[in-house]
Amino acid sequence: MSFHLAVDIGGTQLRAALYSNNHEIPIKLARTTTQGDNQTPQVRLIKLISSIMPAEEKVLAVGVAAPGPVDPDLGLLLEAPNIPGWENVPLQQLLESHFHVPVAVGNDANMAALGEWKYGAARGHHHVLYLTISTGIGAGVIIADQLLLGSRGLATEIGHTTIQPDGPLCGCGQRGHLEAFASGTAIVRWVQEELARGIASSLPTGQRLTGKLITEAAQNGDTLAIAALERSGRYIGLALANLVLIFNPTAVVIGGGVSQSGYLLIDPICRALNLFVMSPAYVRDLVVTTAKLGDEAGLLGALALARSINPD
Amino acid sequence: MSFHLAVDIGGTQLRAALYSNNHEIPIKLARTTTQGDNQTPQVRLIKLISSIMPAEEKVLAVGVAAPGPVDPDLGLLLEAPNIPGWENVPLQQLLESHFHVPVAVGNDANMAALGEWKYGAARGHHHVLYLTISTGIGAGVIIADQLLLGSRGLATEIGHTTIQPDGPLCGCGQRGHLEAFASGTAIVRWVQEELARGIASSLPTGQRLTGKLITEAAQNGDTLAIAALERSGRYIGLALANLVLIFNPTAVVIGGGVSQSGYLLIDPICRALNLFVMSPAYVRDLVVTTAKLGDEAGLLGALALARSINPD
Repeated sequence: MSFHLAVDIGGTQLRAALYSNNHEIPIKLARTTTQGDNQTPQVRLIKLISSIMPAEEKVLAVGVAAPGPVDPDLGLLLEAPNIPGWENVPLQQLLESHFHVPVAVGNDANMAALGEWKYGAARGHHHVLYLTISTGIGAGVIIADQLLLGSRGLATEIGHTTIQPDGPLCGCGQRGHLEAFASGTAIVRWVQEELARGIASSLPTGQRLTGKLITEAAQNGDTLAIAALERSGRYIGLALANLVLIFNPTAVVIGGGVSQSGYLLIDPICRALNLFVMSPAYVRDLVVTTAKLGDEAGLLGALALARSINPD
Repeated sequence: MSFHLAVDIGGTQLRAALYSNNHEIPIKLARTTTQGDNQTPQVRLIKLISSIMPAEEKVLAVGVAAPGPVDPDLGLLLEAPNIPGWENVPLQQLLESHFHVPVAVGNDANMAALGEWKYGAARGHHHVLYLTISTGIGAGVIIADQLLLGSRGLATEIGHTTIQPDGPLCGCGQRGHLEAFASGTAIVRWVQEELARGIASSLPTGQRLTGKLITEAAQNGDTLAIAALERSGRYIGLALANLVLIFNPTAVVIGGGVSQSGYLLIDPICRALNLFVMSPAYVRDLVVTTAKLGDEAGLLGALALARSINPD
């Protein structure tokens, strides 16, 4: 029996799971908060992994999904916007020197793409585009069975591509990025603006709006909430019309919290994609679908990464 | 001594060249018109290749640069906008069955990218973005030393990505594509519109304008011609700001006729790229340069393709 270990580092939570060969259901799973007990996240991470590291048997490799850009050659997390003070954390070196096992590190959107490709919605495809729509917009791309990383691991930063140069302000300080039009944050902001303009809706005006509330209202037939998802979907579809020309994939997988809106988001995405794409040749055999793995995508992608650097 | 043969199929001209191992200067070179003598281009192509095919010695492989989208698995030219009646031409099958030598076919922009990467401006880089700006805008992308093709060879159709949804009409019938803003054709059209508005220029109003005339006028200090190249460069830079986020390359090579404007085009490209790119991390070590191989890029790319399928 051989084992691989996968780790998912989030802003609020650390998760680690141990998998035996050919299985995608962990035989051990542990989680803890990222911050706490006056310990650094590094110390908490090592304690968490230790708690499921088998004493007798050998772990072939550890894969890590990290919440920020990663230098893939060094396994270095360059920054982690959701973990204060985490900059240039040498995750690979840290874990290899502690556990004496090969370690590979990838960013969370790439790991989710890897997970959905190997074990989820894009299984069997060779050219896959994965978008995750939550507070921000991330992406991962598989080209001819290889994850696209770029020269320094900074590729597929699709949320910050410009859709319309004079568009709304993005969290990064620039204008008109896809994220500023179509992320969960952008959806909430647009709904708030519409409510402030006096547009009728079942959504509460007093209380703090969330993407989840908007999705629920849309599912219950609220016109404004439906329009908000349609607007987001239209911009995502416009971006996808460019991305399918760039990558010519056979599968597009939409993950992240906002994708739980299902067809309320996927339908307008497909309409805009078909409207804006240059030629039907790009969409004829294209599958556009929601992600399958939910919160497990990053962990399972880290498992796929671990298995790729040291297979059974 | 071993040989590879490269072929460049253009709308007006066919070229074939024979190369000995480790050399990029052909030992034999032949050219003819694509149409003529009541022969199909296929017949003319085979006659041309035969004229330089060595009688005694073995050719290891033939590489072909074809003027349109190519199914890379089948070596099938799907269409050739500049060769009337050429649709679904099985180039690989045709040449293999005639010459009994392995043949590979790629589209001309991809072959030019391959040429500039292997033998030209991007030599030594592993992640390269090549744009060719002439009547249209084409592209080729090298990722981790591999040409990006996509599932059916239709990838990197960057000229038809949407830059501004309500922008000018593109030759393909859609609106706001990069090609409609920044190609040689778009430059000429914009200058004509400005001249018609009465803007002062040394450019002739009676005679048919070309990109070449505009470049020459810009080099001689004509304000309108300079503004036309700056406008084109700004849109190319905006598109590049997205593409470097998507691919994280270390080199961007600008080829095609319009690139002969040199710094008059490259400077505004770099200004817009730096203005629009999300983070300086993407441009810090990025080389942006004009192509080196001129008209030879496609032929040398076809040579690189031939060498890749059957090396010395």
